[in-house]
Amino acid sequence: MKIAFLGAGNVATNMALAFKNAGLDLVQVYNHRIESASELAAKLGCNATDSIADLNPDADCYIIAIKDDAIQGLAIQLELRGKLVVHTSGSVSMEVLKPASSRVGVLYPLQTFSKQRLLDFTTIPFFIEAGDSHSLSIIESLARRVSQSVIVTSYEQRKILHLSAVFACNFVNHLYDLSVGLLAEHNLSFEALQPLILETALKIQSISPHEGQTGPARRNDQEVMTKHLQLLSNNPPLQYIYQLLSDSIVKSFHK
Amino acid sequence: MKIAFLGAGNVATNMALAFKNAGLDLVQVYNHRIESASELAAKLGCNATDSIADLNPDADCYIIAIKDDAIQGLAIQLELRGKLVVHTSGSVSMEVLKPASSRVGVLYPLQTFSKQRLLDFTTIPFFIEAGDSHSLSIIESLARRVSQSVIVTSYEQRKILHLSAVFACNFVNHLYDLSVGLLAEHNLSFEALQPLILETALKIQSISPHEGQTGPARRNDQEVMTKHLQLLSNNPPLQYIYQLLSDSIVKSFHK
Repeated sequence: MKIAFLGAGNVATNMALAFKNAGLDLVQVYNHRIESASELAAKLGCNATDSIADLNPDADCYIIAIKDDAIQGLAIQLELRGKLVVHTSGSVSMEVLKPASSRVGVLYPLQTFSKQRLLDFTTIPFFIEAGDSHSLSIIESLARRVSQSVIVTSYEQRKILHLSAVFACNFVNHLYDLSVGLLAEHNLSFEALQPLILETALKIQSISPHEGQTGPARRNDQEVMTKHLQLLSNNPPLQYIYQLLSDSIVKSFHK
Repeated sequence: MKIAFLGAGNVATNMALAFKNAGLDLVQVYNHRIESASELAAKLGCNATDSIADLNPDADCYIIAIKDDAIQGLAIQLELRGKLVVHTSGSVSMEVLKPASSRVGVLYPLQTFSKQRLLDFTTIPFFIEAGDSHSLSIIESLARRVSQSVIVTSYEQRKILHLSAVFACNFVNHLYDLSVGLLAEHNLSFEALQPLILETALKIQSISPHEGQTGPARRNDQEVMTKHLQLLSNNPPLQYIYQLLSDSIVKSFHK
């Protein structure tokens, strides 16, 4: 099966390299910025283009892995009738691909990707969907080449999975980032938190997050929480986040 | 060196067992609930008591590992003059121990502990402090028996370390817990998020959280954020957390 990638960012880079390593035939990378297309194509040993007119017509599957809000705009420019066209987004309907082809689907890997960090796909869950059963079986076999966890999922479920990933990954990472700032302000190194961060993530593989909750809000320790809010008095936005999340924890344990 | 533990909760259980495994002599567990004291003492093979009058007077070091807001109240009941008395808290001054003894200090392990999960202490950073240099060297050698990372730290720094741990661990764990609820509401399993949660924590060991940030707020994708807020319309508290943390991410990248 010949695959073309449309996109050359964090998701496209990780996914294309995983597919190549699984022995699939990557034939082309399209990207609106040719530099990014060429960079990924060089890693894959294939052709790069920034022109939709130059898309390789011989691919069997076109994988659109670009920003969510650009998928629809790209799809209406494509004429790939009869070819399988999929996107990799958690939040976009597969219907937006219909202008490009009658055979459409979704191949959503539930993971956070950065170009600088190439991941092993074995345990990454793929949530898939397709407009017809033949396309679904092709998408499923494609996903199974790299992952042991492939689940057929409706758009409604996929949206919830994506939303919960925003809480459990994007917001979590932002809290890490806020800690970096807080420590730096006092000449302390973020390194000291790394064993704690890792254990917090490992813990919930065996204990539920509710059962594993610790800290002043868990104990409803008003004195410590008041002290913490005072320490943040020069940083009202952080103070606000502290207050809101502490209230949310207190409410979930002491209502 | 003979050690007595005052407290039998998550921290006391983990720390006492780590010290025992490192070959130290644990002589007694005190706890105001005798059941908890006996449970931990049985694991340590030592005496348990719920009476301050029955505290073993022969210990060299008394480690108070109880809730932050109970430390001061316990310390004023102790008469351990000349003995080393330490607490394990990130947020409490060592001064509150002075009614118990003239030799006081702090042994603060920066980690999240649950009784059900006994941790390897090798990489856990210990932040230590003492009222005099002799006590400091005893606390340091004690911590070095179980950890490779022992750092002398002022009370001011320790408070900031504890506060940043609340962001990077307690709040993070609560976001995991909110995800559990969101997924359960739609009959989806939390298991699907576990590889993502683990990778989010692993990623920041090699890429800074700022550089590794992904998601709709990172891209300032207003359309997806609006859809997510709509999905949360039946849950205003969650909607509020989503809005606040998304705004905070957008501000840190697109100001």
